[in-house]
Amino acid sequence: MAGSSIGKIFTVTTWGESHGPALGAVVEGCPAGLPLSPEDFTPFMERRRPNGGRFSTKRVEADLVEILSGVYEGVTTGAPILLLIRSTDQHSSDYDETARLYRPGHADYTFDAKYGIRDPRGGGRSSARETAARVAAGAIAAKILRALGISFDTQVAAIGGISASDPEKQAACVDAARKEGDSVGSEVICRISGVPAGIGDPVFDKLDARLAQAVFSIGAVKALDIGAGREASKMRGSDHNDPLRMADGIVTKTSNHAGGILGGISDGSPILLHVYFKPTPSISKPQETVTKDGENIDLSIRGRHDPVIAPRAAVVVEAMCAVTLLDAMLVNMSAKMTSVIDFYK
Amino acid sequence: MAGSSIGKIFTVTTWGESHGPALGAVVEGCPAGLPLSPEDFTPFMERRRPNGGRFSTKRVEADLVEILSGVYEGVTTGAPILLLIRSTDQHSSDYDETARLYRPGHADYTFDAKYGIRDPRGGGRSSARETAARVAAGAIAAKILRALGISFDTQVAAIGGISASDPEKQAACVDAARKEGDSVGSEVICRISGVPAGIGDPVFDKLDARLAQAVFSIGAVKALDIGAGREASKMRGSDHNDPLRMADGIVTKTSNHAGGILGGISDGSPILLHVYFKPTPSISKPQETVTKDGENIDLSIRGRHDPVIAPRAAVVVEAMCAVTLLDAMLVNMSAKMTSVIDFYK
Amino acid sequence: MAGSSIGKIFTVTTWGESHGPALGAVVEGCPAGLPLSPEDFTPFMERRRPNGGRFSTKRVEADLVEILSGVYEGVTTGAPILLLIRSTDQHSSDYDETARLYRPGHADYTFDAKYGIRDPRGGGRSSARETAARVAAGAIAAKILRALGISFDTQVAAIGGISASDPEKQAACVDAARKEGDSVGSEVICRISGVPAGIGDPVFDKLDARLAQAVFSIGAVKALDIGAGREASKMRGSDHNDPLRMADGIVTKTSNHAGGILGGISDGSPILLHVYFKPTPSISKPQETVTKDGENIDLSIRGRHDPVIAPRAAVVVEAMCAVTLLDAMLVNMSAKMTSVIDFYK
Amino acid sequence: MAGSSIGKIFTVTTWGESHGPALGAVVEGCPAGLPLSPEDFTPFMERRRPNGGRFSTKRVEADLVEILSGVYEGVTTGAPILLLIRSTDQHSSDYDETARLYRPGHADYTFDAKYGIRDPRGGGRSSARETAARVAAGAIAAKILRALGISFDTQVAAIGGISASDPEKQAACVDAARKEGDSVGSEVICRISGVPAGIGDPVFDKLDARLAQAVFSIGAVKALDIGAGREASKMRGSDHNDPLRMADGIVTKTSNHAGGILGGISDGSPILLHVYFKPTPSISKPQETVTKDGENIDLSIRGRHDPVIAPRAAVVVEAMCAVTLLDAMLVNMSAKMTSVIDFYK
Repeated sequence: MAGSSIGKIFTVTTWGESHGPALGAVVEGCPAGLPLSPEDFTPFMERRRPNGGRFSTKRVEADLVEILSGVYEGVTTGAPILLLIRSTDQHSSDYDETARLYRPGHADYTFDAKYGIRDPRGGGRSSARETAARVAAGAIAAKILRALGISFDTQVAAIGGISASDPEKQAACVDAARKEGDSVGSEVICRISGVPAGIGDPVFDKLDARLAQAVFSIGAVKALDIGAGREASKMRGSDHNDPLRMADGIVTKTSNHAGGILGGISDGSPILLHVYFKPTPSISKPQETVTKDGENIDLSIRGRHDPVIAPRAAVVVEAMCAVTLLDAMLVNMSAKMTSVIDFYK
Repeated sequence: MAGSSIGKIFTVTTWGESHGPALGAVVEGCPAGLPLSPEDFTPFMERRRPNGGRFSTKRVEADLVEILSGVYEGVTTGAPILLLIRSTDQHSSDYDETARLYRPGHADYTFDAKYGIRDPRGGGRSSARETAARVAAGAIAAKILRALGISFDTQVAAIGGISASDPEKQAACVDAARKEGDSVGSEVICRISGVPAGIGDPVFDKLDARLAQAVFSIGAVKALDIGAGREASKMRGSDHNDPLRMADGIVTKTSNHAGGILGGISDGSPILLHVYFKPTPSISKPQETVTKDGENIDLSIRGRHDPVIAPRAAVVVEAMCAVTLLDAMLVNMSAKMTSVIDFYK
Repeated sequence: MAGSSIGKIFTVTTWGESHGPALGAVVEGCPAGLPLSPEDFTPFMERRRPNGGRFSTKRVEADLVEILSGVYEGVTTGAPILLLIRSTDQHSSDYDETARLYRPGHADYTFDAKYGIRDPRGGGRSSARETAARVAAGAIAAKILRALGISFDTQVAAIGGISASDPEKQAACVDAARKEGDSVGSEVICRISGVPAGIGDPVFDKLDARLAQAVFSIGAVKALDIGAGREASKMRGSDHNDPLRMADGIVTKTSNHAGGILGGISDGSPILLHVYFKPTPSISKPQETVTKDGENIDLSIRGRHDPVIAPRAAVVVEAMCAVTLLDAMLVNMSAKMTSVIDFYK
Repeated sequence: MAGSSIGKIFTVTTWGESHGPALGAVVEGCPAGLPLSPEDFTPFMERRRPNGGRFSTKRVEADLVEILSGVYEGVTTGAPILLLIRSTDQHSSDYDETARLYRPGHADYTFDAKYGIRDPRGGGRSSARETAARVAAGAIAAKILRALGISFDTQVAAIGGISASDPEKQAACVDAARKEGDSVGSEVICRISGVPAGIGDPVFDKLDARLAQAVFSIGAVKALDIGAGREASKMRGSDHNDPLRMADGIVTKTSNHAGGILGGISDGSPILLHVYFKPTPSISKPQETVTKDGENIDLSIRGRHDPVIAPRAAVVVEAMCAVTLLDAMLVNMSAKMTSVIDFYK
């Protein structure tokens, strides 16, 4: 399976370039019988749109998701669901310059190294715009997970190293960067509640391992903590181990340094991820770079770019976690002989 | 593909439990014509064995790897390579207690939740011993990568938060923990040199995403940084972006905050990972836990356990990175029409 | 990977229902640098269209294939290629009757059994119309194979058991069936020339095994012969074995009962498949069947349907073989260490 | 996934060469809680062993299957099951001749073409002996299917084109061939009863398509019929379509030309396959062939070889069908939202 697909049973394949006529996703393996309409995507797409606030550039409408297949009379049929998002902005003439040079912090050089060719319009395939398709697919996964009692709380945790508890300082940090034609790094926290114990696989497909792939597949992610994360590397075992106690007849943990996953399998506690983003690579401040022809130049990237990634990327993290968790839950249904026999009797 | 396999072309499937008669791996998709003998595994297995030093318990022989298939007259044939490591220690009687309770920080409870059954002997399938099979498979991948000019430098970077530049303080930290029946967290740094630009895929199979899955699939890993990692989230774009310059006719970067990967594809700079391990969960210090029958108890884990994970896990990180990188390189061979035509003309 | 995808490196995922707004395919893993334009699809789509001749119903335009992604300035970029074919005919009101009953020889009942829901418009997902997307994807594969010196000769071999050498009798057979509101079975022969020796894998992914899956995934296929096929089961070994002889310094076979594949790997001779189709299941002659509500009824299917499948399905067989063979050839590029080292030096 | 693995959830990977120290399989994704002991393999291995009767050469013991992992106290744990079959016969010196030439009808030449190297001992990886591992894995699948009410009836249907209803004539046919140092083709029929309606996927992973791959992956298979098979291509639609009728409140078919599968999904009728084998390629009658050095020679293959394949291959067909069907049934468990919600409530 080529690199634009993820998942084993609930699989998502994204397609499309930033400035092509449209982009989207094919969602395979969605269980039949789920009510699904274009409105289901709205709250997710809304969280991803530029809202003209302090942390994004211009105010635009949220992307509209069209369903071209897999839904009949408002209900999924089990067939592949083709999600299509039309482009409203295709001014490819702006990208003549990008075509002839390599932007620092972007994939321009590496695409040319791999493929010998690159669609330079708006970043082409490696544009952040590709994540719109992920968010649309994630909306489907999240709807199913909600029906199973699973909910997400995903927030911007820090901007430029400044915690969300100090929003004024965060805003000042972004304003200062923007004024200098610069950008800042950021952090997202995602907490998944209601996941039953027993989800995930023991070895290479540990639930945390698959979440790690899903999260690191988002451009600009540079680090991930699960549970106590990096701090765990400085702790004592007696502090880090989460004690187990019975509570109302159920096995519970009195702390959650594990972040809800032990040995790659969910333990019933909330799953906790911290995701760290690099600063937006597109900055107007001059940078040293090279052209395709091997000339050293100074580059100042024109156009408006978000000065910080997390505010719009939080929903992308949530979408990737939803897709990954749902897939693990569908795979899990055949883990026990008793389940298989119950299903087929 | 069930959860014990990883890779698309060069695939590794591990099998076996800690205290079963043997464990090992099947390596599929290894190119034919590679000289391979049991001695090739020795330096890798040696790095994983307990050496009786300050950071591991008892001194034992390194695991011996037998090749049962896929090699003829000392050369790989392209057929699956079955690697077998016999167990020397099968005292399953020691594990009666483990069978009836859930050790904090271990997968005992989650295995029971998922499967309704668990092999309690030495941690069964989720034992660190499973990584012996990974290291054996990684030795094959690393040998091929060496032939392609790629080398690894993998080190313990910190123990209990103390940097490797202060070995005396590290040792004291471990000694103190051990004396108290406790353990400490740790950190590994892995640096991969010689990777050509162009390896990896743009979307879900980004090279960093697949390395993340590979690394988080090692039990006890709680965090990962690629390149600048978490620090990137506190930086300005103008500091974080790696400037490009021509050097001897080649595109080079004058810094490497990206950690050798841009847009999921290698950029020709060294790939840099920091991997963070939790403290060893098996400690003799008393802990609160529960039995399978739902009784609250205090547990003091008997037997000798390494007080810190990184020293023996460093080679596991290297093995997982080698397996993942090699697979991406084999997949990459058909990325361009010119390569396909050259190959078949 | 859910059931609408095929292939490991060159992967094709089809989506869409017969009477939805559009259907199509995502082609992943297409090598970058292939010139590709909508015109490349025309000859393939033309072979699949109803041409109003003796063997199909009404004359209509060939389907138009739009490329929504993966191509920049007329050349593939290595990104997923989204192929879209808009529907021109969406009279879903015709399908009220189909919705409430199960047509014999169709997937109506089995879809309801599996999914509990079904898109009844024109056969929905299991319509022969889905193969339009396969043909479009196959056109890409075939273009690459042509560049590698590989060509296809795919023909209708028999209709109603009558060989293509007797076209008049074939026509009479079809006319007679049509007049009675009936249909007839048919056979396609596909011969692939120019395949180099060495393509395919030894065990489960034998080239013939993967071709078999590809061919049997076409609705209405009931049998397949590779090489001598069923006749081989009646032969002596001394007759069936293809003798090897040197010819101009090359190993050649003086017969080809193997059909170009030995041990799952191509031997350099033409690959030969005979594919057998059942009669078109949609017939106007009355048939016994049941409704969804469990009532026995007599059904006479209205509307025009091709009385025989092979004439329009031949190009579908060719498309599936092209997709499968190309994928095997891309996978094959890393089979030898010498190839890997040559590629990366 | 390389070519020695098959399946999505219940996956089987075979390893080992004919004359290596051992061969076997790794079975991943087996549900936990299945009682499994070495005795479970005996009846299957017994059916595959040479029994010294008219259709096989020498009488030998059935292969002994050892379980090295994945079973604890006689019950599967959900972990990979390593099955090991030790070789009793490793006289590799016999194979010096095979190493230097290409046997007609064998994979010798194609292996060399693909890999540039080949294990010549007893056919190495492409030996029929590899199927012992498949049969062992199939025994596990079949045991699970039995618990779900599914049974197999697999028989030799014909030898040298002579039907099983005439055993005397069959025996004479084999005797005549053997006397002349020759071999004959054969046919197996496999009938699977008790499969519920709704198993399989609509497009590329049609149940018949996956069975076709599974069956054609057995060396020497040259043709496959599903249901009416090749005869369907000569029939009228009104004869071929299976009428549907209600019987005791259940949808039933009054004939089964479809062979139990409609649109790739099981319809509740028995699944019916006819599998056609070429004659054993190893014959002592002289044949024309070439050496690796490009010399034309005459070859008379020494040693004892079964003169006909079906008698020992019938159980291999059954094993491959069992593995494939079980995998499709496990995948199927998440097809409906109602099933997913029921499972997790």
